[in-house]
Amino acid sequence: MKKNLLVAQSGGPTAVINASLCGVIREGMRHPEEIGMVYGAVNGIQGILEGTIIRVDDQFETAADFELLCHTPSSALGSCRYKMPSPDKGPEQYAKILAMFRKYNIGYFAYIGGNDSMDTANKIADYCYEHGEEVRVVGVPKTIDNDLPITDHCPGFGSAAKYIATTLMEVAADAEVYPMKSVVIAEIMGRNAGWLTAAASLTRELGGSYAPQLIYLPEAVFDPEQFVEDVRRELDKRDTVVIAVSEGVRLADGSYAAESMQSGQVDAFGHKYLAGVGKYLERLTADRIGCKVRSLELSVMQRAAAHLQSATDLEEAVRAGEKAVEAMLRGDTRIMIAYRRISDAPYRIAYETAPLGEVANVEHKIPRKWINEAGNDVREELVRYLAPLIQGEVSIPMKNGVPMHFSFDKTRLAD
Amino acid sequence: MKKNLLVAQSGGPTAVINASLCGVIREGMRHPEEIGMVYGAVNGIQGILEGTIIRVDDQFETAADFELLCHTPSSALGSCRYKMPSPDKGPEQYAKILAMFRKYNIGYFAYIGGNDSMDTANKIADYCYEHGEEVRVVGVPKTIDNDLPITDHCPGFGSAAKYIATTLMEVAADAEVYPMKSVVIAEIMGRNAGWLTAAASLTRELGGSYAPQLIYLPEAVFDPEQFVEDVRRELDKRDTVVIAVSEGVRLADGSYAAESMQSGQVDAFGHKYLAGVGKYLERLTADRIGCKVRSLELSVMQRAAAHLQSATDLEEAVRAGEKAVEAMLRGDTRIMIAYRRISDAPYRIAYETAPLGEVANVEHKIPRKWINEAGNDVREELVRYLAPLIQGEVSIPMKNGVPMHFSFDKTRLAD
Repeated sequence: MKKNLLVAQSGGPTAVINASLCGVIREGMRHPEEIGMVYGAVNGIQGILEGTIIRVDDQFETAADFELLCHTPSSALGSCRYKMPSPDKGPEQYAKILAMFRKYNIGYFAYIGGNDSMDTANKIADYCYEHGEEVRVVGVPKTIDNDLPITDHCPGFGSAAKYIATTLMEVAADAEVYPMKSVVIAEIMGRNAGWLTAAASLTRELGGSYAPQLIYLPEAVFDPEQFVEDVRRELDKRDTVVIAVSEGVRLADGSYAAESMQSGQVDAFGHKYLAGVGKYLERLTADRIGCKVRSLELSVMQRAAAHLQSATDLEEAVRAGEKAVEAMLRGDTRIMIAYRRISDAPYRIAYETAPLGEVANVEHKIPRKWINEAGNDVREELVRYLAPLIQGEVSIPMKNGVPMHFSFDKTRLAD
Repeated sequence: MKKNLLVAQSGGPTAVINASLCGVIREGMRHPEEIGMVYGAVNGIQGILEGTIIRVDDQFETAADFELLCHTPSSALGSCRYKMPSPDKGPEQYAKILAMFRKYNIGYFAYIGGNDSMDTANKIADYCYEHGEEVRVVGVPKTIDNDLPITDHCPGFGSAAKYIATTLMEVAADAEVYPMKSVVIAEIMGRNAGWLTAAASLTRELGGSYAPQLIYLPEAVFDPEQFVEDVRRELDKRDTVVIAVSEGVRLADGSYAAESMQSGQVDAFGHKYLAGVGKYLERLTADRIGCKVRSLELSVMQRAAAHLQSATDLEEAVRAGEKAVEAMLRGDTRIMIAYRRISDAPYRIAYETAPLGEVANVEHKIPRKWINEAGNDVREELVRYLAPLIQGEVSIPMKNGVPMHFSFDKTRLAD
């Protein structure tokens, strides 16, 4: 008997997570002899638990609708940050999921997400297997943080990296106009892994001496005194110094650099002052160097800026979704789609698979040897690794001057 | 005897100030029978005072170089925030400028800038006239704030508006993924005029009910209690509420809303805590409503994002530069190029001129009648005014995945 396909999205948004969703749905619809209907769970695993499951294969009228979905940022099916307990701690939740799979005759389950999501997918696959339910479970990687193991890189990272490099160039151009000493500090996402911050170096591929002049990553110990010296030295060479810093840089004792500024005082509302590392370094620069200084956060813009999708990232994200369906149809389960890099130039990758159990809860960080000894810049090897991932521009659908986004009708629940 | 043309840029950067610069230089070079050489002053009026003047007409090898300049954000000639004293307070500065004009045989001076810059241009024009030096002085408007009088709108505003609307859409998509009540607050530039913040409403031109749901502008009195009520009401209707707020919103007593949070306490460096209105409203929301809340600042990105130039804004900015040269050749002086809107749909404008003296130091704000009575949203008239300004997309020159920018050689000073 033909089985149905269920797809869901989880974790933080990216600019191309919907491209992978498009890949799964469209590829699923290409195999009517093996796959019956394509369902989507609203808000990831939480939607399965709550029974908010919709048909998605009947929500596309034309090929242009699929295109539109590919260029829509964030998770069109909604997301969740629901952490599944182990089956012995939460048996009723697993039973609920199994019941839903049976109710909708699910034989294929594609879960698009990052680290935690792969752990969830793995647990569900194990549980189904132990209970004799044949559901093939395949994970589709997704994270701007680029911190999944085994795979060379992750869908979503390249587009965020392109946004970061482009924005840093523009911010640097903005900062350089006045004839005075000034420092600009850009705080970039990445609590434990510095891949996104390292992407700020991609401006150098243009050949000139582009900003940022200093790059601080969580993989190297952060020393405030060294920072002040670094900035002083760079200010001696030029008027404007642009700095890219990861939100997660830590001192030698392992604490976050920004913590050293938290004074325990409260504001008019009684809330503790909490500032990010950008604000911390801004204050440090003002205090110790005394020049004009500005900090800015690329915030959620860096993960949602679909208008600056990397063509490479977009194509790979779609293909990852398609490959997940192909793998399920081959009979694969408990795996995640992974990229293996064949060469940097010309850039070529192969699509492979990794066991979910080996991906779940493992964080892939930047090798220390790809960071310079002083811990204030990236090495050439890292730029070479990053550069192919942001290549290629995408023409996104626009209407009345702003991007068009796709949205599902999530109110019509499946029977 | 043929005279030379001098051009300079002043004030804060925009995404298209270099497009106006391109218009001036290229048009200047098209009239060799009347204009000798085209010079640029580095860092605006400050460059004239310090004698940092370069040839710019010999720095373009091909038409593509002019194109590149048009797509380069910020001020390629550098900028300044130098406030000229009145001639009786600083006669030596005016004498210096006059001497430079004479040294370089300047007969045409184009100054690209905002409010203060038009004041500077006006003073210089007066001084030259009084001292018998025939220099035709024409201002080219430039400001993301859109607050210059007489002209229908200002070059630079449309591109910033397009960036703001696009970013708000992406940020809203990002915020809407989790099934929980949440509030996102985007702090947008505009200390006295709310045009930029109002541009967040342009997502509505797509026809749906797009974010932001609440828009607060400096032109309407801000009431924190009303804000809390507004947010509560919107949260009753939907999970995610997106708010656009101008950095300059003020309470009934005229003080900035953000000031009410400043507690006078100092951080570990002894600096006073200074937070923007976004952070203030974030705290207010957390304190009074208690849901998930995030604030973000569009910071300098909103004025530097040349990768999202509005085609309309870009074309008009180039034309404003060209028109300035045309006006000077006609014999006009002490004027600024201005746009007059002929119709909204189809959108048509005429290029006119305004006396510098009537432009200098006057701030053009949003008419209160274009804001709704509650002061938490814009009216249809305002959207109709704004919509044409962000129309059209531009394909910017890219290399290795990031935008290419033009730069002048500023080290070779003119003889």
